[in-house]
Formats: sequence, structure tokens, C-alpha cells
Amino acid sequence: MRKDIANLKYVFNPKSIAIIGASDNPEKLGNVILKNLVDGGYEGKIYPVNPKYDELVGLKCYPSIKKINRNVDMAIFAIPAQIIPKIADDCGKKGIKGIVVLSAGFGEIGNVKLEGELKKVVLKHGMAMIGPNCLGVMNPEKRVDSIFFPFYKFGRPKAGEISLVTQSGAVGSCIADLAAYYGVGFAKFASYGNGTTINDADLIEYFGADPKTKQILLYIEGTKDGEKLLEMLEKVNKKKPIVVLKAGKSKAAGEAAMSHTGNLAGNYMAYKAAFRQSKAIEVDSVVDLFYVANIFSQVRPKGKRVAVLTDGGGLGVLTADALDEEGLEVVNFSKETKSKLKKVLPEYVNVVNPLDIVADSGTDTYQKALRILMEDKEIDSIIVIILFQAPAVDSRIIDILVKESDRKKKPIIVVAVGGEYTKENRRVLDSYGIPTYGSPASAVRTLKRFSDYSLFLKNKK
Amino acid sequence: MRKDIANLKYVFNPKSIAIIGASDNPEKLGNVILKNLVDGGYEGKIYPVNPKYDELVGLKCYPSIKKINRNVDMAIFAIPAQIIPKIADDCGKKGIKGIVVLSAGFGEIGNVKLEGELKKVVLKHGMAMIGPNCLGVMNPEKRVDSIFFPFYKFGRPKAGEISLVTQSGAVGSCIADLAAYYGVGFAKFASYGNGTTINDADLIEYFGADPKTKQILLYIEGTKDGEKLLEMLEKVNKKKPIVVLKAGKSKAAGEAAMSHTGNLAGNYMAYKAAFRQSKAIEVDSVVDLFYVANIFSQVRPKGKRVAVLTDGGGLGVLTADALDEEGLEVVNFSKETKSKLKKVLPEYVNVVNPLDIVADSGTDTYQKALRILMEDKEIDSIIVIILFQAPAVDSRIIDILVKESDRKKKPIIVVAVGGEYTKENRRVLDSYGIPTYGSPASAVRTLKRFSDYSLFLKNKK
Repeated sequence: MRKDIANLKYVFNPKSIAIIGASDNPEKLGNVILKNLVDGGYEGKIYPVNPKYDELVGLKCYPSIKKINRNVDMAIFAIPAQIIPKIADDCGKKGIKGIVVLSAGFGEIGNVKLEGELKKVVLKHGMAMIGPNCLGVMNPEKRVDSIFFPFYKFGRPKAGEISLVTQSGAVGSCIADLAAYYGVGFAKFASYGNGTTINDADLIEYFGADPKTKQILLYIEGTKDGEKLLEMLEKVNKKKPIVVLKAGKSKAAGEAAMSHTGNLAGNYMAYKAAFRQSKAIEVDSVVDLFYVANIFSQVRPKGKRVAVLTDGGGLGVLTADALDEEGLEVVNFSKETKSKLKKVLPEYVNVVNPLDIVADSGTDTYQKALRILMEDKEIDSIIVIILFQAPAVDSRIIDILVKESDRKKKPIIVVAVGGEYTKENRRVLDSYGIPTYGSPASAVRTLKRFSDYSLFLKNKK
Repeated sequence: MRKDIANLKYVFNPKSIAIIGASDNPEKLGNVILKNLVDGGYEGKIYPVNPKYDELVGLKCYPSIKKINRNVDMAIFAIPAQIIPKIADDCGKKGIKGIVVLSAGFGEIGNVKLEGELKKVVLKHGMAMIGPNCLGVMNPEKRVDSIFFPFYKFGRPKAGEISLVTQSGAVGSCIADLAAYYGVGFAKFASYGNGTTINDADLIEYFGADPKTKQILLYIEGTKDGEKLLEMLEKVNKKKPIVVLKAGKSKAAGEAAMSHTGNLAGNYMAYKAAFRQSKAIEVDSVVDLFYVANIFSQVRPKGKRVAVLTDGGGLGVLTADALDEEGLEVVNFSKETKSKLKKVLPEYVNVVNPLDIVADSGTDTYQKALRILMEDKEIDSIIVIILFQAPAVDSRIIDILVKESDRKKKPIIVVAVGGEYTKENRRVLDSYGIPTYGSPASAVRTLKRFSDYSLFLKNKK
């Protein structure tokens, strides 16, 4: 592993952070970041740097990086682009191992030379650099957070197993915000912007070796090193699922990507081939990036045979359509399972798959039917549709689902469509590791990718 | 119009409602419906009917429908299936014009004969019947509501312009609940279940003539009268957009549909041909049914040329990809528009479409750019992407969007992806008639259908 990539450990797990451009002006990034670190409960040392202040939020403020007479692991830059190469050099001389450069104003607006200078300085010192022109990093476990978005606008995910690699800060923050909303945990967050030294492939290499990371999300417009990207996708995806969203497929989008981070979006076909070859899990939309990552909290399915349990007939019909379209199997229940189900279900229930226990059926009926489907070895995964609006379903359904899911026999995913009450119940389920979906189509699309990946791993053996 | 269809006016606008099977047991439908009507503020007369009680929630309770010595417009049935034909006959004799039969237990579980008896009775009296085996009806304006779902679980939409025709109560309630959550109004809601007498086509005919209904949503598994359905789609879709979701396309789903409402799902190709011929707007998922209906609150676009305004680069790139995929045009800005934009935008903004004003840009920049795009006659619609997480955007953005939208020059739709804060802002925008979407893909999919429909109307002239 290249020295600067290995040094990413100081970026994600620093014992001390300098904030270059710290400020008491709430309009400035350097103020928001400082406050976020303090309010977020970061436990390491924080060194604000700005010659204008002696103190900021009760912390001693230093006139320059050189004047900090202690060891510093990592520095976050929130100062104008022009002076960054010089100060990055000071950081290197001081022995700082990692820097996060949030500032824009480099290659993406044509300042290619300035970006070249920064690159040279960073590589000379072997420093890990995230950026420039990015949102930077989060490590929720260690409360490391360089995101200049306020807490009330942007929820921070709890500690967890997903690491995100994103060229776009906006896309990354949308996904992290969704994860926070649904109570889904993140291991690391890396918005790398222009990716001047450390790029997509480097971050995948690093997270591939990070024991806290169990799955990787990648949002990419254009890479600087296609060869290494393919190599890393192939190597890492075998151990940890990589879910990828490629943007800039069309001409207009490619031009937008160029002015976004100064990287060529390139020929989509080449990327598609790389995803196929490595079996990385490609998705088509930003929400699917989150949805697919979330399903990996479930045990892997052994095959494509799906049972659908529902209390709303129409939603069962739509789910069957979606399964058929995605090439998953709406399994025919065995004689044995049918006879077991008949014993516990009301007489008026038609025992077929999708199994519609109808809206009058209560939570107990769900429990009995679900247990029988869980025991059936000819069923690989279960989609449970819950019409939370119906009076017969009570909140014990959540306990039942969590308990069955904890037995880790096969994946359970939930579809629940609706407003306030339904969304609150979805949040509880998601935060306990049961992925929920707002439509049958998105649940099935996600399950298909999960099944495909599981099959890929099985065939590897 | 058939007499029983015309009598639907008594179902949707009754001056008095009898609840047959009213109860004081909270586990019974007849209790929930009674309470919902009272608590929901229905202003007409309510007549609970049940020989077991003298009074219910402060209202006189009648032993039978015959014993009510006043005029009754409509009756809701929440009693066992077997006795319904007899009591429906009593209703007809008393001069009741419409009935809503919630109870299941007819053709969908093989009781075809019983359903036949009910049909005969209803047609003999020319009564409008919704059901059986359904959730029934809502008219938010008049607070008519036969849905047996409690208020805290299932939000009721406010009064508005959308009418929903749904074979599945579950699907219908999901959509209405989403509408309530986003503050989108409904004219009428009709879950018709088995559709024994009044069916999909009949409801479209009725809503086609209803002045309060401006657009129609249809969820259908299988119709009883394909010929009339096509006729009504053709006739009504010219005046009011009909958005349709057809379920039961696959074999497994078709079987599920049969046991759901006792109707054959039929050959999907025949439905598809009918949608094509009538130019009804077909969607593929339950959430799109809501999304597409909601966009009609905007003025119709004159063409396919779309401008994208964003403060998050990656989201702009994804939107451009989606526009390209759907065959909408990412318009090249004219020289004039470019020069106007350059005057108001920060120097570092690259003036191209998608227009990425970057996350540092504030609300004022949005306002200036949006105004210029609104004035450009070479732009037909505008997608505004808002990263509500970014500190520079403040809540004035909502006022700005509402004001520009109120000028009714071209449609404005919003993409905002994220958690709590973002979702709350989306709700405010939607409730003021600006449709919002949780991903670029769904926004563009919806805009495409809106453009196609607008083009269809234009070519008609």
C-alpha cells in the first residue's frame, strides 16, 4: 500500500486535529467545522489555527501550524486555494500525516497548475490528502467530522459497517443523511472531490483492509486511474460488497461532471465492463445506493426463491410482478408448508404465494405465518409487506420481525408504503437492521442485487 | 350515464349516512367508521343501525334500516356477507340511493352465488354500490369517510383535485396516506374492491363529469368490462389526465389478483394497448402513481427543453443522465441567458446546463438564477435541486419557489434527497403545490410523463 494511502489511518482516526482557517464568524466554514467537532464530542485534541484569534470556543488558537508545539495527526483546510500548497508544505514539515482540503478553486475551475503544486507537496511528504474541493471525512465511531453542514440540517449516521467513497459531496451527504434518518450506521465517510492524490481506487484499497468496514458504497463520475479501479473492484468486492453508482453517462452529464471535479467522466461502457467483470453491484439511482447497502445487514440468501407475506392484497400483486420482472422466483409453497399454514390461518385466506393474510388479520397471524415460512428450506428470502395503516396490526409486529431476523436463517425485508405513522415504523425497523422499502419495486430491485451478489460469492468457493 | 352510476353523487355527497353494523366494540369496523365520521367532522346526519344498542356515541341507534323514520342518502355496510343482499334490498325499498359494502366474503373466496344475489338486488333498485370487499370512499371536502383505518395510523388528505379509483384498498390507502403526508389534496377516493356493479370504467365516467375532479388515478388488477374501460379512458383522458398502474402482469401476480378481488387480471398486452391508444399515463410503481398525480398542480410544459438548477454538482450530473435516458432535452442556454447569468453568479460558477451554483452559494443566488431561467422562452421546465443540508441555503428558498411557481410561466419541480430536515422542507413545498422528489430519477421519470401528456393535448388541438 502506498505510504500516503496507509496514512489515511491518521485522517480517519486522528488523536489530534488542526483546523486551518478556524473562525468565530458563523458564516465561515472554519467556524462550522470547529463547532461541529466540539459539539459532536470528538475526544482528541483540537487546535484552531488563525492569526486573527487568541482563543476560539474556549480553545487556544494558534497563529500558524508551525506554532503548535505538540504533535498533530491531521489538519483540515478551510482557507483560500492560493495559499494552500504553502501551508500544506508546513504541515508536512511538522510531521502531520494527513490533510483534508475542503476548499474549491483548483482544477475544476481551470487552476490546473495550482492543483499540480499541491499534489507535488503532498506526495513529497507522503501525506494522505482528501480533496481538494470536497466535504471531507467522517468516522462516527471516533466522532471525526469535517463536514461543514450544521447538525440540524444534516443528520450524522451512528457508528456502523458501511463506508462511503464519493466524488460528490452533495451525493455523499444525501446518502449519509438518509442513513442517519433510518438509523443505519456508517464506518467511514470519504468525499474526495478532485481526488488529486488519493482517489476512488485508493479509498477502496484502504477500506478493503479496514476491519470496521463491511460494505463499500461508491459514487463516481470519472476516475483518474481506471486500471487500479478495476483491480481494486475485483480484489475487494470478493470480500466486501461494493455498491456503485456511476454518473456522467450521457454527453450533457459528462460535461457537467468535468466542471464539477475536473475529472473526465469517460466512456460509460468501459465502467460498465469493469463492474461486470468485478461483479461490483451497480445501481441506477442515489436512493438505491443507500437501499442496497442497507440490505447487507441481513444474512445472505441461498438462492432466488422468494416468499411474500402481506396484509394488503394489491401490494402482494405488485410485488409478484416486480419479482417476475427482476427474474426472482415467486416460489410455489410445498404441500407441507401449505398444510402448516392452513392450520394457523383464518379460513378465508387463500394459501398461495404471495400469501395475503388480509387487513383484518392481526399481528398474531403474521407471527404464525412468518415462523412457518422461516422454517421452510425451499424459501430463500421473505418479503414482508405491512400495511401499518390497518387497525389489526399492532406494534408487536416490530418485535416479531426483529426476533425472526435475529435467528439469521434467511433474509427478511419489509415493504411499507405511507405517511407519518408508517415512516416512523420504518425508521424503527431499519435502525434494528431490518431494511424497509417505500415501494415493492425498490424492495425487489434491491433483493435482486443482494441475491446476485450472494450467488457470486457462492460460485467463487 | 347509467342510473346507478349517476347515484354515486349520493355516495360521495350524502346528506345522511346509515352505518349498518355500528358498534361500541373498538375491535369492530362498525365502531371505527362511526367514530371516524363523528371525529372527522362529517356535518350530515349519522344513523347508527344495530338492534343491540339504543344509543352509540351519543347518537340514537336504530334496530334496522326500516325503522329510521327520516330520509337516508347512503348506507355503509359493516356486517357479515351472508345477510347483506337482504338488507341491501331493505335499503332500496327505503329509497336509499347509494351503498358502500366493506365486508368481504363474496366472489373473491368463491361465494359467486351470494355476490350474484347482491348484484341483482342493487341493480333492481338502481342503487350505486361501491364494493363489496373494499375500503369504500372518502370525500375530504364533505368529510365523508368510510375507511376503517384509525386517524393516527392513516392520514386523511385535505380537499383537493385528485380523485383515486382503486381496486385494492391497501394500494389506495398507501397513496392517500402519502398525499396526506405531503399535504396534497384529494377530491374523491373510491376503493371499489370486487366492483360487482360499479367498476373502474364506471368510476372514471363519473369522475370525468365531476367538476371537483381535475385528475384521476387508477390502480387496476383486472376489469370486468374492457370495452367500456377503453372507451372511458379515451373519452376522459382528453379532458383530465388519467394516471394508471396496472398490476397482475405476470402469472404469479395474476393468480394473486384472482384471489384478491375475484377478477381476472387478463392479458397485460391488451391493457397496454388500451393505455397507448387513449394516451392514459402509465406508471410502474405505486409511489409513481402519487408522484405523477402531484405534478399536475404545475402549469403544463410547452416542450421537452429542461433546465437544471442545483447547488450540488453530483445531483446535477445524475439529473442530466436521467433526462438523457428519458428523452428529455438538457437545453443549451442561449447566449443571452448565459450573459444574464454571468452577471449575477459568482465568478467560479461555470455557466452551463445543469447549472451548478455550488453549495457555498446562498438563497439569493438561487433567486437570481431562477428568475433568469423563468424568463427564457427556450426553456420549457425547470428542475431545481436543493441540498437543504448546505448552510448557505435558508428557508426563504421556499418563498422564492412558491412565488416563481405562482407566476405560472412554466413548471418548476424540486429534487431534495435526505433525512429529517430535508423531508420537512419537502412537505412544505408539496403542500404549496410544488412537487418534490426524493431522487433525480423519479423527478425526471415524472416530468417525462407530464411532458408527454402536455404534448398529447397540444397535438389534439
